[in-house]
Amino acid sequence: MDQSQTQPRVTLVGAGPGSKDLITIRGLKALQSANVILYDALVDIDLLKEAAQGIQKIYVGKRFGKHHTSQEDINELLVTSAFAHGHVVRLKGGDPFVFGRASEEIEHLESFGIPVTVVPGVTSAIAVPESQGIPLTKRDVSSSFWVITATKKNGSFSDDLIHAAKSSATIVILMGVRKIKEISVKIKEYRGGLMPIAFIQNGTMHDETCQVATLNTIETILESVDNTKPGIIVIGNVVADHPSFFEEEVQRVLSSQL
Amino acid sequence: MDQSQTQPRVTLVGAGPGSKDLITIRGLKALQSANVILYDALVDIDLLKEAAQGIQKIYVGKRFGKHHTSQEDINELLVTSAFAHGHVVRLKGGDPFVFGRASEEIEHLESFGIPVTVVPGVTSAIAVPESQGIPLTKRDVSSSFWVITATKKNGSFSDDLIHAAKSSATIVILMGVRKIKEISVKIKEYRGGLMPIAFIQNGTMHDETCQVATLNTIETILESVDNTKPGIIVIGNVVADHPSFFEEEVQRVLSSQL
Repeated sequence: MDQSQTQPRVTLVGAGPGSKDLITIRGLKALQSANVILYDALVDIDLLKEAAQGIQKIYVGKRFGKHHTSQEDINELLVTSAFAHGHVVRLKGGDPFVFGRASEEIEHLESFGIPVTVVPGVTSAIAVPESQGIPLTKRDVSSSFWVITATKKNGSFSDDLIHAAKSSATIVILMGVRKIKEISVKIKEYRGGLMPIAFIQNGTMHDETCQVATLNTIETILESVDNTKPGIIVIGNVVADHPSFFEEEVQRVLSSQL
Repeated sequence: MDQSQTQPRVTLVGAGPGSKDLITIRGLKALQSANVILYDALVDIDLLKEAAQGIQKIYVGKRFGKHHTSQEDINELLVTSAFAHGHVVRLKGGDPFVFGRASEEIEHLESFGIPVTVVPGVTSAIAVPESQGIPLTKRDVSSSFWVITATKKNGSFSDDLIHAAKSSATIVILMGVRKIKEISVKIKEYRGGLMPIAFIQNGTMHDETCQVATLNTIETILESVDNTKPGIIVIGNVVADHPSFFEEEVQRVLSSQL
């Protein structure tokens, strides 16, 4: 191995929203030149087959408290892997800078003098609604969108969610699976019960599911939500573009009147 | 040419934020199998070299009133190209569903029974700040981001901009180059003059430029803005992560005190 291969460096790569062919060309090249890969829970596992044979591929996923690697441990592992093996690829779902805690990893690495490059990825926040035919912006319907996490570290609602509710923005909520009902009640106060809502799981994968309702009828879909898996909530008039929105809503309203 | 090649169909492909290697694998494959390409002004022109030799590549860009193809003309051209040649790729900068008017094209095509597929792209709204080391979200600094256009069709400010100003969200403003000063004055009312702001042009390309200031000192950078080109405005505390933010701000404050 020549020296250039063992120079410690880290590339943070956005793997995209799910399906392995939604990584960028630059991201794939980085992956193919990695000496070690640290990957999280959100990535299509087949993507790892693109890496060189025999290199270490370390799972550092954090999801719902299953196997749990702390951020401190990940930071430390990035540093030791880079010094030991050279080029480390840190593969993250979606885009590294959208709720990816990339800044913490970069600051830690740079404090050791290890150079870091970031390769952007297609964010799930946009691509997953898109895969269901829901545009986040649409002329004369929505001219802005707001991407937000449901709750703050202490578990309380973010004040920003109220500002978003008051606006006409399409609201995209990540990490909100277990809070759909409370979120819907809160936003309904400002937007009314006829506002459309979509809930999508396994976005862009073969087992993608999407359920659409209004804030009035959201309870009817809650039973079929798998809250052990992440999902994306979209609230806004653009959701009415989903092919099954009107048909399903009519069914729900009719059955509620029986 | 067999029949499958002449079956009319359209793929809307997000080309990503600029540099040609930031397209997705799926997007590149669509491009390589196109019989006609309709592309807009935001794309790295080298990307077109990936297409098959000899096919029609039609520029349909709309930028600042130069060569101007109306949306109606683009819709019509998509239909006639698909019926004449089969697979049409409509290549758009960034992501097709982020201010890309994709919905209008899809609705028009589907009214002719032409099937449409959408391939998401890395949006400039996220990747361009990222290329400057500015994360849109950061633990304990910003837990949401809002992507918005500066003005409505009639030229007035969007009410959503006020809601965004009142929140703690990172605000990303597209198509706002000629309105930076007015936007800054408006947002300063709610966020104060020390709020950091970044302005980036030619994002992810070799000639990328980024200028950072605060809402108080924004006027000092306006002179060097090229308002014949699009740019991205980022407002939020995350901008302080830009390597030159503090150094440049100190210089500006010192020189204003002379």
